[in-house]
Amino acid sequence: MNVTDVEVLDSNDPLAKYRDEFHLPENTIYLDGNSLGALPKRVKQRVKEVTEQQWGNDLISSWNQHNWVNLPQQVGEKIAPIIGASEGQVICCDSISVNLFKLLSAALSFNGTNSRNKVISSHDNFPTDLYIAQGLQGLLGEQRCQFVDVQEDNLLRSIDDSTAVVMVTEVNFRSGKRLDIKSLTERAHQHGALIIVDLAHSAGAMPVHLDNWNVDMAVGCTYKYLNGGPGAPAFVYVNNALQNKLQQPITGWFGHQNPFAFNPQYQPKSGIKQFLAGTPSIISMSAIDAALELFDDLDLQTVRKKSVTLTTLFDDLINQYGLNDQLQRLSPASAEERGSQLSYSFAYAYELCQALIDRGVIADYRAPHFIRFGFAPLYNSYKDVWSAVEQIRNVMQTDAYKESRYAERLAVT
Amino acid sequence: MNVTDVEVLDSNDPLAKYRDEFHLPENTIYLDGNSLGALPKRVKQRVKEVTEQQWGNDLISSWNQHNWVNLPQQVGEKIAPIIGASEGQVICCDSISVNLFKLLSAALSFNGTNSRNKVISSHDNFPTDLYIAQGLQGLLGEQRCQFVDVQEDNLLRSIDDSTAVVMVTEVNFRSGKRLDIKSLTERAHQHGALIIVDLAHSAGAMPVHLDNWNVDMAVGCTYKYLNGGPGAPAFVYVNNALQNKLQQPITGWFGHQNPFAFNPQYQPKSGIKQFLAGTPSIISMSAIDAALELFDDLDLQTVRKKSVTLTTLFDDLINQYGLNDQLQRLSPASAEERGSQLSYSFAYAYELCQALIDRGVIADYRAPHFIRFGFAPLYNSYKDVWSAVEQIRNVMQTDAYKESRYAERLAVT
Repeated sequence: MNVTDVEVLDSNDPLAKYRDEFHLPENTIYLDGNSLGALPKRVKQRVKEVTEQQWGNDLISSWNQHNWVNLPQQVGEKIAPIIGASEGQVICCDSISVNLFKLLSAALSFNGTNSRNKVISSHDNFPTDLYIAQGLQGLLGEQRCQFVDVQEDNLLRSIDDSTAVVMVTEVNFRSGKRLDIKSLTERAHQHGALIIVDLAHSAGAMPVHLDNWNVDMAVGCTYKYLNGGPGAPAFVYVNNALQNKLQQPITGWFGHQNPFAFNPQYQPKSGIKQFLAGTPSIISMSAIDAALELFDDLDLQTVRKKSVTLTTLFDDLINQYGLNDQLQRLSPASAEERGSQLSYSFAYAYELCQALIDRGVIADYRAPHFIRFGFAPLYNSYKDVWSAVEQIRNVMQTDAYKESRYAERLAVT
Repeated sequence: MNVTDVEVLDSNDPLAKYRDEFHLPENTIYLDGNSLGALPKRVKQRVKEVTEQQWGNDLISSWNQHNWVNLPQQVGEKIAPIIGASEGQVICCDSISVNLFKLLSAALSFNGTNSRNKVISSHDNFPTDLYIAQGLQGLLGEQRCQFVDVQEDNLLRSIDDSTAVVMVTEVNFRSGKRLDIKSLTERAHQHGALIIVDLAHSAGAMPVHLDNWNVDMAVGCTYKYLNGGPGAPAFVYVNNALQNKLQQPITGWFGHQNPFAFNPQYQPKSGIKQFLAGTPSIISMSAIDAALELFDDLDLQTVRKKSVTLTTLFDDLINQYGLNDQLQRLSPASAEERGSQLSYSFAYAYELCQALIDRGVIADYRAPHFIRFGFAPLYNSYKDVWSAVEQIRNVMQTDAYKESRYAERLAVT
């Protein structure tokens, strides 16, 4: 594989035209879209319009005039096809943490008994998911919520008749390993358990089939592959079959049947809208709304195909240059078994990450000794991959990462 | 009182210079800043900078480089002096609904027993506050959380030894009536109860003295008198004395002692930061951060004094023109006993509100038959009040609100 081969890949890329939709800083190869997606150009315009025209000029009337009041639903419906959900099952609101709390509480209240009180997750799930289950256990007590985390490989066999809820993330944040959600859902249902899936590292990077897999509930993030901006509100999916059986406990006024009647008694909205709580952050949510326009008419199979080719190219180049002696791949060898990222174990992962940043290659470090590269098929080119590996090779071969300045920086991302 | 008197008031107004800090649409008198504050000009610039420079160019590194990671705390510290809180007690996050859920759960877990399980609020509190208590009762059961709502006038005497938490809003959203928080806090403490105060209609409109009043916990909104933008994140106050005794249950990763260690076991941050849950919405939160600069060196006694003069002038003019025969004031007669708003009962309140909107006067309607006028001392002038009453007089005297088109509009705000 040489640079010419890579250029051919780019010239045949059906998604190449999307790159121009993004604002990408000069002299930077951004391989961290799995942490924070890049800025779509159309979002700049929308944020300006919402701030200056809608808020500035039209003020309170914008709740109707610009349909702010339905923004959570409108954004939800744009996310729905991306995650394989038919209409009326997805809504945009709050953070993943808050949404998991809502879903997990609702699932336990509906499905839990004294003998079915376990919440099963994997020890290596993204920590906020684990923390939320621990927080709920603290509030409800072990009799109602007994949180159990197991090794990822033991998840399937850990589900039994004492399981109330299985709570998993499809793509592991650290290793990039994909779980088989369909099998986990089948197993959960065989044992009378419900399943909640976190799609933080899936949505927008690959096809997801929530309806077909018969998943009960899901949450996800809009600031990674959906490019909604830093800390953009998250989303909630609840299967139609369950919606009116569940009652989530954070019963804020936006989930009320008729919030503007100001009735002192809570009555949930029917359907997915009862999962709303407080007033939505309109500026942040409008940014996502605009970013999602890029997914109109986008075939997620094409996105996935490019993602697989990107990760395969990267890993092949690492091997081709013999860098795999030092950078040990944590991610699965088969591209089919991983998400749109590659992680490597390396004693100096933190320092390497810093040295690469200095050379314009943005990846991220994950404690204790992993470096993680994310590939965003909408704006990363094959040439990006080539150039990034060239820089890694240079840093590794010159031991540049050992310079003391790299060890001294504080890690926060 | 005539227009010349009003012009004298404006020319002597020490806050007059602030009006120019806001983007105010032409030909509009905006008396709805108690629902959505106007756009500060500096917010336009900040939102553009955060979107285009910080997110667009600096991408993931902005979490450190532009200190996004500390934005919730930074904004909290700017709000603190506005609500009479010393350092380390206020943080910006989530919505009022979500924050009330955190505080009420934490308060009940800490202070509740089988014989002390009541949450007392007033029947006329803002509905989301009531709904959250109802939702928590649904989750925890009546043994742990028995929600009781009483008439506002009976609040004080309803607090007894069975009360775990008193949950009140200082300024009533409908009537504008102020509660005596100091007395309610004293009474709550005498009976071993905790108090949670909602400052949605207080913060930024008048001095608040949380520390001096010895309040335990508070929440508030940043999109009314603090001008943070539509649905901007809310804030939480927890008194130093209580912070490390409480454990809130929505234990997201931003409240973890060391989120970037990705430890599977939750360990709360010490102090106010444990009240964070998920990743904050950076664009919306940056808007507040900029809006709060207007409160640097601002004397809230001066703000309150102008607020009192504005509401008094408005009500005097209503009386002067004999409009009080039809518009019956719901708000207290004494300006000292009300917030920065005036509400009137009128059978055609909805239609009047629509007719005024057509004439460039923005107020809001509250079911079933109230019209509510909010006065924002930073950008409303005395001339605004004069001109608004002129329009009301015109609409009332010509019965213009009876035109059928006004009754037909849908009410949502």
